[in-house]
Amino acid sequence: MTTKAYAVTSPTSPLAPWSFERRAVGPLDVQLEVAYCGICHSDIHQVRNEWGNATYPMVPGHEIVGRVTAVGAQVTKFKVGDLAGVGCLVDSCRTCAPCARDLEQFCEKGAAFSYNSTEMDRKTPTYGGYSSDYMVDEAFALKLSPKLDLAGAAPLLCAGITTYSPLRHWKVGKGSKVGVVGLGGLGHMAVKLAAAMGAEVTMLSTSAAKEADARRLGASGFGLTTDPATFKRLAGHFDFILDTVSAPHDYNAYLGLIRLDGAMVVVGVPPEPTPVAAFPLIMGRRTLAGSLIGGIQETQEMLDFCAEHGIVSDVEVIPVQQVNEAYGRMMKNDVRYRFVLDMKTL
Amino acid sequence: MTTKAYAVTSPTSPLAPWSFERRAVGPLDVQLEVAYCGICHSDIHQVRNEWGNATYPMVPGHEIVGRVTAVGAQVTKFKVGDLAGVGCLVDSCRTCAPCARDLEQFCEKGAAFSYNSTEMDRKTPTYGGYSSDYMVDEAFALKLSPKLDLAGAAPLLCAGITTYSPLRHWKVGKGSKVGVVGLGGLGHMAVKLAAAMGAEVTMLSTSAAKEADARRLGASGFGLTTDPATFKRLAGHFDFILDTVSAPHDYNAYLGLIRLDGAMVVVGVPPEPTPVAAFPLIMGRRTLAGSLIGGIQETQEMLDFCAEHGIVSDVEVIPVQQVNEAYGRMMKNDVRYRFVLDMKTL
Repeated sequence: MTTKAYAVTSPTSPLAPWSFERRAVGPLDVQLEVAYCGICHSDIHQVRNEWGNATYPMVPGHEIVGRVTAVGAQVTKFKVGDLAGVGCLVDSCRTCAPCARDLEQFCEKGAAFSYNSTEMDRKTPTYGGYSSDYMVDEAFALKLSPKLDLAGAAPLLCAGITTYSPLRHWKVGKGSKVGVVGLGGLGHMAVKLAAAMGAEVTMLSTSAAKEADARRLGASGFGLTTDPATFKRLAGHFDFILDTVSAPHDYNAYLGLIRLDGAMVVVGVPPEPTPVAAFPLIMGRRTLAGSLIGGIQETQEMLDFCAEHGIVSDVEVIPVQQVNEAYGRMMKNDVRYRFVLDMKTL
Repeated sequence: MTTKAYAVTSPTSPLAPWSFERRAVGPLDVQLEVAYCGICHSDIHQVRNEWGNATYPMVPGHEIVGRVTAVGAQVTKFKVGDLAGVGCLVDSCRTCAPCARDLEQFCEKGAAFSYNSTEMDRKTPTYGGYSSDYMVDEAFALKLSPKLDLAGAAPLLCAGITTYSPLRHWKVGKGSKVGVVGLGGLGHMAVKLAAAMGAEVTMLSTSAAKEADARRLGASGFGLTTDPATFKRLAGHFDFILDTVSAPHDYNAYLGLIRLDGAMVVVGVPPEPTPVAAFPLIMGRRTLAGSLIGGIQETQEMLDFCAEHGIVSDVEVIPVQQVNEAYGRMMKNDVRYRFVLDMKTL
């Protein structure tokens, strides 16, 4: 089917209208009309080829929510009219050890991502959610509760699962002392989710102006990270730190805030490797680890958790025609906390 | 009691004969005549004040084995004539959460170390095992099986527990695929211990000349780390990597050798922080962590494990008068794999 979209054709071109053909509805496919698509910071990295793997034309967008407009003959999870979501993953080998553990994001064959990737045939390009319609195998489509604000739910598909998964994997729960580094698209979801899990959340931010917002989102503590006293006051305080920052920053200082056997998990990718000293790791048997989105089963669990706890992203909904301006504002961190494209405006 | 020793009096002075008074035998004390004391690389760092916390005169040595010559009235674990060992730890607060978990090395009040430290009174200096006698509370003295070669057992008290503890904590066992980075005092113990635990051990070394030795010690595989092909061949291969190297090296390359959810644990301290990229952590949810010696209970468990499996360190026994020469040879990695001072020569 002919699909309208916004695409880039080179690392330096702006996003502009484009159209292309999506595949016909296969027996296991779910077709959805995209209602909203969140703008993830990684969209900017990818359109500009900052990760070196860009293919053009590129239609970004992996925070996709909408309503089902058609289903294949063998589809059982969805019917026409249902709400559905699509995140970063649209397929995987489904047989390797990680896939068998519902960790499709680590598929040994390499998962198929929702854009700037290919189907598992390794040939057919995938185009993302800055588009009128999406087509996905039902196994990779997520069910969305009508209780959730639809525009605010879009960023859950990436920002939500990226922060939910490490909180769960490192067993954050009632009474856990959690530090969240950075209050942006990822950080604000981390605060909401960790607080809903029962954790005592402290926002660690370079900006004193963000304290009020952090507390509104669920943080009970705030640490200004430009003040060295913060690192003395909170030394050894946290069971777990989720570091959402992609700008250069000193991991060692944050490692010192973790208790014995605690972990700091990074989900942001600074442009250069970060110097890590052995002593903060050795003293306290501390862990520095990474985490990558989450598998489909866990993404569904996260969406159900958000529906139960009334959690969505704080969003600024904009018409698709403002996407280039939005990218510019994101580069200046001028968004609280996620732009979402209203795809009806396409 | 008057104790003969070798000490340094400044960061630049050689080790030379010195004598001092040890405390009288207290009710819970065990006095031992030091038979052998291993030379740990950290002894060199400490006498030269490379960690910035040196106090002089300093008697190094925390790989201490000998025979009990006196016990206090309330001592129950030892009697005169027993073999005993003393490692890095000689006391701790015994009440904080880590002490309650038998992790005295992480005592929140700060443990008392066997030299270049103080007793828990924070006043009385501790002097190490390059000495004729040692005095220690029985709670921090280890029982040594007569089955173990006594000189070879000395390095177990530091090199042994430093490698045993992370192998146990990260649950290395039968069939685990373990990489050991560096074949020195720590690395050769890691190979022996991991192999005895049933792991499939691969030595990762910059020196092809060490392959034969690594295999003799128990490694079933070898990777030459100066050859980039090694990092392709072993990508994602290991469940666990123990990194024993204190020289600068690229953590990221080794992180790439770990499977999903695997861990690399550092026990060496390179002179400068090591640049760590976020991608190798995020891709595979990998852990980079540190580990510090081990608690007293685990040290005893390690010594019992070594007795059961016939494991001691490969040592070169030297008279104490050659200690300065030994330091010089250690700086050139010219020892296979641990110098041990014969304290009868004092």
